[in-house]
Amino acid sequence: MQYENLDYDRKGRTGFPEVVFCQGKEDDFLIGIYRKLYEANGEVFGTRADQHQADVVKAFIPNAEYDRISHILRIRPEVDPILLGNIAVITAGTADISVAEEAAQTAEFFGTYVNRIYDVGVSGIHRILSKETELQEANALVVVAGMEGALPSVVGGLVSRPVIAVPTSVGYGANFGGLSAMLSMINSCANGVSVVNIDNGYGAGYIATQINRLAIH
Amino acid sequence: MQYENLDYDRKGRTGFPEVVFCQGKEDDFLIGIYRKLYEANGEVFGTRADQHQADVVKAFIPNAEYDRISHILRIRPEVDPILLGNIAVITAGTADISVAEEAAQTAEFFGTYVNRIYDVGVSGIHRILSKETELQEANALVVVAGMEGALPSVVGGLVSRPVIAVPTSVGYGANFGGLSAMLSMINSCANGVSVVNIDNGYGAGYIATQINRLAIH
Amino acid sequence: MQYENLDYDRKGRTGFPEVVFCQGKEDDFLIGIYRKLYEANGEVFGTRADQHQADVVKAFIPNAEYDRISHILRIRPEVDPILLGNIAVITAGTADISVAEEAAQTAEFFGTYVNRIYDVGVSGIHRILSKETELQEANALVVVAGMEGALPSVVGGLVSRPVIAVPTSVGYGANFGGLSAMLSMINSCANGVSVVNIDNGYGAGYIATQINRLAIH
Amino acid sequence: MQYENLDYDRKGRTGFPEVVFCQGKEDDFLIGIYRKLYEANGEVFGTRADQHQADVVKAFIPNAEYDRISHILRIRPEVDPILLGNIAVITAGTADISVAEEAAQTAEFFGTYVNRIYDVGVSGIHRILSKETELQEANALVVVAGMEGALPSVVGGLVSRPVIAVPTSVGYGANFGGLSAMLSMINSCANGVSVVNIDNGYGAGYIATQINRLAIH
Amino acid sequence: MQYENLDYDRKGRTGFPEVVFCQGKEDDFLIGIYRKLYEANGEVFGTRADQHQADVVKAFIPNAEYDRISHILRIRPEVDPILLGNIAVITAGTADISVAEEAAQTAEFFGTYVNRIYDVGVSGIHRILSKETELQEANALVVVAGMEGALPSVVGGLVSRPVIAVPTSVGYGANFGGLSAMLSMINSCANGVSVVNIDNGYGAGYIATQINRLAIH
Amino acid sequence: MQYENLDYDRKGRTGFPEVVFCQGKEDDFLIGIYRKLYEANGEVFGTRADQHQADVVKAFIPNAEYDRISHILRIRPEVDPILLGNIAVITAGTADISVAEEAAQTAEFFGTYVNRIYDVGVSGIHRILSKETELQEANALVVVAGMEGALPSVVGGLVSRPVIAVPTSVGYGANFGGLSAMLSMINSCANGVSVVNIDNGYGAGYIATQINRLAIH
Amino acid sequence: MQYENLDYDRKGRTGFPEVVFCQGKEDDFLIGIYRKLYEANGEVFGTRADQHQADVVKAFIPNAEYDRISHILRIRPEVDPILLGNIAVITAGTADISVAEEAAQTAEFFGTYVNRIYDVGVSGIHRILSKETELQEANALVVVAGMEGALPSVVGGLVSRPVIAVPTSVGYGANFGGLSAMLSMINSCANGVSVVNIDNGYGAGYIATQINRLAIH
Amino acid sequence: MQYENLDYDRKGRTGFPEVVFCQGKEDDFLIGIYRKLYEANGEVFGTRADQHQADVVKAFIPNAEYDRISHILRIRPEVDPILLGNIAVITAGTADISVAEEAAQTAEFFGTYVNRIYDVGVSGIHRILSKETELQEANALVVVAGMEGALPSVVGGLVSRPVIAVPTSVGYGANFGGLSAMLSMINSCANGVSVVNIDNGYGAGYIATQINRLAIH
Repeated sequence: MQYENLDYDRKGRTGFPEVVFCQGKEDDFLIGIYRKLYEANGEVFGTRADQHQADVVKAFIPNAEYDRISHILRIRPEVDPILLGNIAVITAGTADISVAEEAAQTAEFFGTYVNRIYDVGVSGIHRILSKETELQEANALVVVAGMEGALPSVVGGLVSRPVIAVPTSVGYGANFGGLSAMLSMINSCANGVSVVNIDNGYGAGYIATQINRLAIH
Repeated sequence: MQYENLDYDRKGRTGFPEVVFCQGKEDDFLIGIYRKLYEANGEVFGTRADQHQADVVKAFIPNAEYDRISHILRIRPEVDPILLGNIAVITAGTADISVAEEAAQTAEFFGTYVNRIYDVGVSGIHRILSKETELQEANALVVVAGMEGALPSVVGGLVSRPVIAVPTSVGYGANFGGLSAMLSMINSCANGVSVVNIDNGYGAGYIATQINRLAIH
Repeated sequence: MQYENLDYDRKGRTGFPEVVFCQGKEDDFLIGIYRKLYEANGEVFGTRADQHQADVVKAFIPNAEYDRISHILRIRPEVDPILLGNIAVITAGTADISVAEEAAQTAEFFGTYVNRIYDVGVSGIHRILSKETELQEANALVVVAGMEGALPSVVGGLVSRPVIAVPTSVGYGANFGGLSAMLSMINSCANGVSVVNIDNGYGAGYIATQINRLAIH
Repeated sequence: MQYENLDYDRKGRTGFPEVVFCQGKEDDFLIGIYRKLYEANGEVFGTRADQHQADVVKAFIPNAEYDRISHILRIRPEVDPILLGNIAVITAGTADISVAEEAAQTAEFFGTYVNRIYDVGVSGIHRILSKETELQEANALVVVAGMEGALPSVVGGLVSRPVIAVPTSVGYGANFGGLSAMLSMINSCANGVSVVNIDNGYGAGYIATQINRLAIH
Repeated sequence: MQYENLDYDRKGRTGFPEVVFCQGKEDDFLIGIYRKLYEANGEVFGTRADQHQADVVKAFIPNAEYDRISHILRIRPEVDPILLGNIAVITAGTADISVAEEAAQTAEFFGTYVNRIYDVGVSGIHRILSKETELQEANALVVVAGMEGALPSVVGGLVSRPVIAVPTSVGYGANFGGLSAMLSMINSCANGVSVVNIDNGYGAGYIATQINRLAIH
Repeated sequence: MQYENLDYDRKGRTGFPEVVFCQGKEDDFLIGIYRKLYEANGEVFGTRADQHQADVVKAFIPNAEYDRISHILRIRPEVDPILLGNIAVITAGTADISVAEEAAQTAEFFGTYVNRIYDVGVSGIHRILSKETELQEANALVVVAGMEGALPSVVGGLVSRPVIAVPTSVGYGANFGGLSAMLSMINSCANGVSVVNIDNGYGAGYIATQINRLAIH
Repeated sequence: MQYENLDYDRKGRTGFPEVVFCQGKEDDFLIGIYRKLYEANGEVFGTRADQHQADVVKAFIPNAEYDRISHILRIRPEVDPILLGNIAVITAGTADISVAEEAAQTAEFFGTYVNRIYDVGVSGIHRILSKETELQEANALVVVAGMEGALPSVVGGLVSRPVIAVPTSVGYGANFGGLSAMLSMINSCANGVSVVNIDNGYGAGYIATQINRLAIH
Repeated sequence: MQYENLDYDRKGRTGFPEVVFCQGKEDDFLIGIYRKLYEANGEVFGTRADQHQADVVKAFIPNAEYDRISHILRIRPEVDPILLGNIAVITAGTADISVAEEAAQTAEFFGTYVNRIYDVGVSGIHRILSKETELQEANALVVVAGMEGALPSVVGGLVSRPVIAVPTSVGYGANFGGLSAMLSMINSCANGVSVVNIDNGYGAGYIATQINRLAIH
């Protein structure tokens, strides 16, 4: 049965190459996708892969690389792209770095220069303030936070460029799997903050790239 | 029908005089309570009164005073109490001041000195930071915020004393009547933050007084 | 009592002049703000004003204008700004136009050219498809929808620029005041979609302006 | 202990033979049901079986067949039924195919001809539009979608026959196990859309068959 | 401003004439729609009108008729349509009749014969059982219930034709505006039950007509 | 550390002997409780035990018996109690029997005669109606149902004695772990229905015993 | 239109006479019901009537009496019934008395003796403890509480008879219209507690009467 | 990659040494933190460690000790601190002790004397009342409860010092992972009660220490 049509021409049409969403895909199916995209494009970039999927794909395509932190499974091209512009990817805590790396590496895969600013949450407010100049240099800012999700409001107040807020499922108890952070961000009192799905680093990296491209063209 | 027994001796026993929760009380009933407490104590303090209730009580007891911002309806004693210690009552925005005043005036009614620091929300982070010294002088800090409710986490990171967070129903849309702020505060990443009910300024003023008394005794 | 400090210098610092959030503000307070901002800036722009507030402000400042659809209460400057760039503001139905106009007029107040595309919801899919070229010319797209909130996903699939999705409280029953539309948009399967609060046209117009400015500079 | 009475005569009475809901049934119990129904009817059709249940039943009844995608465990009759009429089963993505196949194979088990149209979600809207004629030929349309669940609204706008919408638990984060898709579908702005439980492919296949029978009789 | 394009040709294309959703429409706008549709079609059918809207429209178009129970505001054609086929509209209680009449009159407007069976809820189960023959004669059954929403499951077990379940907001306390009834119906253990939005009588009448037409053609 | 004080005298004081809630108890702790209660009372009755706990206790106390359906782990007394009065325990489906047996065996442990009536859910309404006489003979009726939880309303309409409704977590999708059934039961339109926690067979058996004792004394 | 069939014979059949649920009933309809029931039974008992409905009915039937606290609108019989047995109706606060009176007067209407114990909430625990003997004399206990809904658990631990817990919508903020109290009561750690809908005093009075009758017969 | 900066000087600055939140930390990372903190401070205190993490750390640092009840993994200093002041840590049931011990041991780590009062829930109200004197001697009271979470309201009514309420996830069914207890506590009718996150024993121990220090200084 052949249910999925891969979109090889996507990059030519939209400027964004196909990305594989690995989660939930069966082994055979995943290997097939990686093979076809590798043949067609000379590189593959997949998100939300687990260790088992990484092992399976690497058994067939040895130069596949798996990043245990971001859960990205990729085959790099022979020549890495030149990274242009400037976006910031910021996290409240260290536990948010997994999602932040998904955002950052996605943006880099799409050719965007990324400035990482990690572990600068609001309970130690001087940490983010010491980065104010760096923040203001970014064309777009991806702000990743779990628990009370307060960091995007602070960042939104410090810059004049768009903030893409990413709630994470980091926390416990009444965080309800990221709902608390998501509601915080949707209700932000700061101007310029919009929100993507819980743990959706990929989506934030994509949007930041869209904005960055407008700035550099 | 006589369903409620007033607790005239409460102040002697617990150190906190009876406070009237006006909301939902019928006119006759409310006037009766104010009269009895005034006769017994020489003063009355009531929260969540509306304008109609204020008018009705003032028609019978002319020296009753109504504060339209805090919705407190009180009859002042001949001699105001001396205010001791130091608590801070802080708001994120101007719309939170109604709840903050309920907290502040409650604490003052109980004899606590209150330092008001209003409209210092996280989207203009330098406002709260400029108050850092004042914050650190307080024995307890009541932090009132609606929308994303982020301010208690920032304050919690700046001080070593307890923070009582009061979520407010200020906002619209996905604030769900204060739920978003409440979840933020419950999930605070800062140490030392505990939470009371949405719009419960009275409760926060009470707890801050309890803590302040431990500090000054 | 003077609780709020107006930020007259905001435009010089951030490029965005102060906007008044009228909802919930008392009459005296509102008139005061409009007067001070008018003296300082020669224009005022306020959102979420009701008819009563409009009448009160117009009684004091006759050249104030109220738009019953967008609930915007403004005093226009002597010379209207030149509108630059291109954003699209799109609605699913006619009932979403109120929120869309808040977005569109906010963006215009900030100097952005707006292309309005209204009543093109997904149940008559050929309507939005007939606008495909216009959509692709926009630097950013504000997509406003209530009920099932599906339109941003369709638009996101047609363009390569960022989509800011605005859920509205339009609908009844299990729309839960806009929650259904908000969850749809947060879970969008399309790339490039981020979300603001329910009925937050202002926020979307602000972000679209931020993005448009990057494109035209 | 014998708690369940099988309904052997169901087909004669209602036109729909008994279907086994395997999920949660203990091994011995399940084997017993399959044996009795096989003896009585010469075929058995069960939904929501897992691999372990499939192995256990096949150990006793070797001609049982398990479909890993739809989780259907069946023993085919000697002669397959003739499939009549025309319903469409449509999915937004490839991850929805599991539920779609439950619907499609259920309808086929009940004698309905099924036209499968898969992976035509709204973020690439031209895919579903290219099938417009096929859609209009169906007597009923089962539309299966997770995440934002927008596809039924688009399909509902393209056809004049009933659409049965099936929300799926596909997605992550704020999809809340399929709640987001379910709310979208319940709030559909298109006419002719009704909804069944999350992941309830069986129920949708049943209803589509009921409608198809009215059309062909 | 002219934001809405009326779809005069809708009946020719889909077999269903345009219906006006009155709720939330401003007076001038509503009068305009009724006039244009009346001129074009010789009849108008609108749902969710309130008494004020009825008065306003009747002031301009005296032969408009308002049904206070169903909240339908219509202008009848010179010749009523012949009603064909057979659907049943059933309610659990008398308070559900408002929604049921919206369903029934909608179906009649579309030319469907309707058998009304009201106040036959499950707490007096013999009432619905005494109607078993009538139920089985219907091509489709609209079952309207609030509170625990149990009636569709009982009806679904008595018939072999599709049941469209309509949850209503009837009830109080933990009915959460109809959520309890909606969840009951979505989780129905009976086959053949699908669900529309809370209080959506119109939608159910529409779908029942779609099914009835398949049966009579 | 000795944190729990067993209440050996409970039976003498309240008429109800101590029951062990096994879930979540550590092995050593559980064995200790069973031993002490067995020595004191000559019998032990525990609910919500899993297979591992059963194995562990049986290794130390060989005459312990485990019922895999009800998850009750008990040591029977030398002489079984005489069962008095009459309560009915009723289930909608076979999957609800686990909870029903917890209720029934609890009631029997407390000396109550139980009439089991299983698998008589509302989608085959004639099943429960054929038991009408038996239902009316019971002093109290425990009605156990998952999914839409409709059965208690039907039973409540057939009898004049109290109905204790037990929602179960049986179902999937939008049953939300039993919430749908619980809301149905709380909103029952039938008189005489009260509700206990999801899957709380023990509680229902306890209350039915309380009521039954009033009837037989 | 005659949609409702009154059940005049209900008392003979079930022992409970018909009760009118006034809320939401139109004036004409309500007057008609009161007249018919009064002619048939010589008395009428209705719940959830508002002041307007009371005025309307009293205009036609002057001996109707309205209790503003319980919202009960009744026409008393010539001879009041003898009250038998003993149930307790208990409230946490004074604001819960409205619901408690609905319960108490309902039980009295059905011939049950009621012992009222009001304003004995858990924050002043000695109040309920001082009534321990009275509590233990009741055959059933209706416990009415809003806010955190803790009182039924305390009462349940003090008595061996069934407790019917009634959550009320009393409170504000995160009480969510009574949800907090309802969840507390459903999760009660005390044995013998079952729950009815939020503010459902009638239902609790009915069940307590059912239990009381078993005790006195 | 080095993402986290440990805050060795924290104790000097705030009076509270760094505590490790073990949950979710990878093995290598955790070992590194324990080593560095041990070298710097001569002791380490970590919360929410699982057995695997304990084994891994103990393999490298043999004098690490793991408490299976509180899930605290610590390396004790050579000299234990002197415990000052007096706080009470109280639980409703035995299943709440895990969270209570996290609170108690955290407070002890910070130098606070703790009085443990366990298994005194409201369903056996005399247990907590027998401790009234001890309760009143505490400077702050941590009250830990799951299920209906009623205990803090009772304790709050017995003392004049602050109560920090800790909801736990103990329970099943409609406890929704601790939500029921959390809502109870937030809605407490007692004065002086504030709330921390579900299962957040650490946070409560921290706040109780803050308050205790004010009392003893």
